[in-house]
Amino acid sequence: MEMEYDFDLLVGYLENRDYRSLRAALAEENEVDIADFIERLPQEKATLAFRTLPKELAAEVFSNLPPETQQVIVGSITDKELSAIVEDLFVDDAVDMLEELPASVVKRVLKSAAPETRSLINQFLNYPENSVGSIMTAEFIDLRKSMTVQDAIKRIRRTGEDSELIYTCYVIDDRRLLEGVVTVKDLLLAQDDETIGALMEPDVITAETTEDREEAVQRMMKYDFISMPVVDRENRLVGIVTVDDVMDVMEEEATEDFEKMAAIVPSERPYLRTGVFTLAKNRIVWLLVLMVSGMITGGILGRYEAAFAAMPLLVTFIPMLTDTGGNAGSQSSTLVIRGMAVGDIGPADFFQVLWKELRVSLVVGAALSAVNFARLLITHPGSPALALTVALALFATVVMAKTIGGVLPMAARMLKADPAIMAAPLITTIVDAFALVIYFSVAQALLGL
Amino acid sequence: MEMEYDFDLLVGYLENRDYRSLRAALAEENEVDIADFIERLPQEKATLAFRTLPKELAAEVFSNLPPETQQVIVGSITDKELSAIVEDLFVDDAVDMLEELPASVVKRVLKSAAPETRSLINQFLNYPENSVGSIMTAEFIDLRKSMTVQDAIKRIRRTGEDSELIYTCYVIDDRRLLEGVVTVKDLLLAQDDETIGALMEPDVITAETTEDREEAVQRMMKYDFISMPVVDRENRLVGIVTVDDVMDVMEEEATEDFEKMAAIVPSERPYLRTGVFTLAKNRIVWLLVLMVSGMITGGILGRYEAAFAAMPLLVTFIPMLTDTGGNAGSQSSTLVIRGMAVGDIGPADFFQVLWKELRVSLVVGAALSAVNFARLLITHPGSPALALTVALALFATVVMAKTIGGVLPMAARMLKADPAIMAAPLITTIVDAFALVIYFSVAQALLGL
Repeated sequence: MEMEYDFDLLVGYLENRDYRSLRAALAEENEVDIADFIERLPQEKATLAFRTLPKELAAEVFSNLPPETQQVIVGSITDKELSAIVEDLFVDDAVDMLEELPASVVKRVLKSAAPETRSLINQFLNYPENSVGSIMTAEFIDLRKSMTVQDAIKRIRRTGEDSELIYTCYVIDDRRLLEGVVTVKDLLLAQDDETIGALMEPDVITAETTEDREEAVQRMMKYDFISMPVVDRENRLVGIVTVDDVMDVMEEEATEDFEKMAAIVPSERPYLRTGVFTLAKNRIVWLLVLMVSGMITGGILGRYEAAFAAMPLLVTFIPMLTDTGGNAGSQSSTLVIRGMAVGDIGPADFFQVLWKELRVSLVVGAALSAVNFARLLITHPGSPALALTVALALFATVVMAKTIGGVLPMAARMLKADPAIMAAPLITTIVDAFALVIYFSVAQALLGL
Repeated sequence: MEMEYDFDLLVGYLENRDYRSLRAALAEENEVDIADFIERLPQEKATLAFRTLPKELAAEVFSNLPPETQQVIVGSITDKELSAIVEDLFVDDAVDMLEELPASVVKRVLKSAAPETRSLINQFLNYPENSVGSIMTAEFIDLRKSMTVQDAIKRIRRTGEDSELIYTCYVIDDRRLLEGVVTVKDLLLAQDDETIGALMEPDVITAETTEDREEAVQRMMKYDFISMPVVDRENRLVGIVTVDDVMDVMEEEATEDFEKMAAIVPSERPYLRTGVFTLAKNRIVWLLVLMVSGMITGGILGRYEAAFAAMPLLVTFIPMLTDTGGNAGSQSSTLVIRGMAVGDIGPADFFQVLWKELRVSLVVGAALSAVNFARLLITHPGSPALALTVALALFATVVMAKTIGGVLPMAARMLKADPAIMAAPLITTIVDAFALVIYFSVAQALLGL
């Protein structure tokens, strides 16, 4: 992405030690761009630039820096400066930061936080990974039923600066039980003396702290929410999930699925920032597993050595058969896995998917094997039995591949396993083995090998 | 996803023709849930239920219905009712609807629209698919520099009900040139008599109507915006992109990439709502292409018929070699394609990616071929030359596969082709062919075949 600010100009100020101009220029920029600028600087320059920032910008810029740069900065500022940043960070950003930093730095950061902030951060750090609790934020605006619109707007004005998203306000009672929701739009469009109780929408769609974050994201997308309240088991309001976190989760979850389906152990860091050995490690595990299953397929092939020693031509059709089988299977599994990820397909649809894949595979299998049969009659005019063998094996392979590809991810989900792991690579290997057995069984029957 | 409303109760009202209770019950529900309810009903019942809706809900529910149900309803209501719905729809929702409906219905809908709405809809329909223009909405709040905070809030109150997102307001001059941005949060936290000119942020990050929608989505995610202004070439404000559309685009684009990478022609409709023949058609094209390339691989294999006729054992290592090559290549291509899709990797990183993949492939290739060599020494103790052949071929295959897998998607992007199409299936086929050539070349050299 191109830069939206003048990098050379800012570096110029820094090199000429013109900190006043630098400070003034940075104050004009967006915090995302300032973080980008600081990230591009060498270590000592980065710290210098960060320290010239106006106080009110420091925390926002800090939360946009990558963990390495955050660590450098934490290492070079005083406890007082650190404490100011931690207090200014939104709790969810502080938690994100702490999860990436080494334990010694985390200790120093927590020590610098006010007791209240520290207890909130600790509470957040304890929510399980991928739970709603782990992505929620604790800053939101709560109102009471008895307030008037005017009271509510006053309250927003007073507490608004600390809230990540002020546009949806939650109505709670004395025990913090969630009673309703009211938007700033409702407030602005209402009369000053209407009460929140009359204005609020009492049926609130919520998420629970321990719920899977993906489910909450699906719900927010379904209803086009920009924030959603998070409650504990007793329906007490404890936080909100905001749309910016939802977008991050969506992108992360899709990336994870891409990685799993390509047989890679998912990693949280961007490709270019991951070291060669980490990248290699994340890939070797699955390649080894799949290599072993490739050996098993080789073993199955070995059982038919007599057949292809007698007719070596048979071997040349193996890549076409196994590739087509693998591709046909991945098509089905990908559609089903993605359908489950976006909430279009659920466990109740098992038989509908099976029936659909069966019919699709009959159509696809028939078309592909017809093309193959015709082509073999032309290229190998003297061997109609061979053409029939390949065509029949291809048909059976496609039907088998698509049925397995459609059903396996759903079975995985029912067994609480991750459907994406059951995808392309594993299915390809299973399909390969079956395809070879089908092919040589048909060949033995039709060609008498 | 479970239902958040009482389906049986609502159907009960409908069957007892108790339309008054139905109307009252529906008025309590969220428009997404009402649409879900109507969608589950048989055709005539769906129309009946839709017509009992209070007027102010009709358009919102309508925009949440799938195209088939929309069509049924359009076919059964009067022109006057239709016109009321079209006027109440947000322009982008109306456009989404029209893009899915048959031409005859579109004509009737456009005829029912007021001239102003019609011209807006037509303008939107002309923006190219996947452009920012095609997802923007025309309803937003524009302010002038000279207004005070009080004026601005009055204006929001007056026009707010028609605006999809009122929380970010745009400041324009008399020629509609964009001058700045101010949020409702800024307004609420400011004094009543401050002017918008003093309060607004003059550096606005925008999107252009003809820009690729993916780029705009990336920018919104980068800056955590909930809406972004869209300008034409002359920097005149023409619309906004809102976060709910952004989430839909993100999900769609990821789904498209999943489909392309699994060799499927992307489809806009959910799996369970797509017919068997459409599903088959979307899959056959690529399967045919890949089947042909599988045949080419078979042809390459045919050139070594003499070699494996002399030593049939060689054949049994082919699945392991080609599978591992294919998997190694897909790993690299998937990481690079996804990295480009989320904006982490750009064309400038070409040599960095090449260098990284080369090093990763040396590590991975060495590890895998060492495991294989050791295993072959055990399973085939008399043939160290064979073990060496397989190990060397595997090493070269992994290096080749990862280098091609990393570089091909980037090359595709530079040639303005779609990187996702260059992914798994195509790379697998290319890698298969190269792997066989490498394998038999090594075998001929070391085993003297």
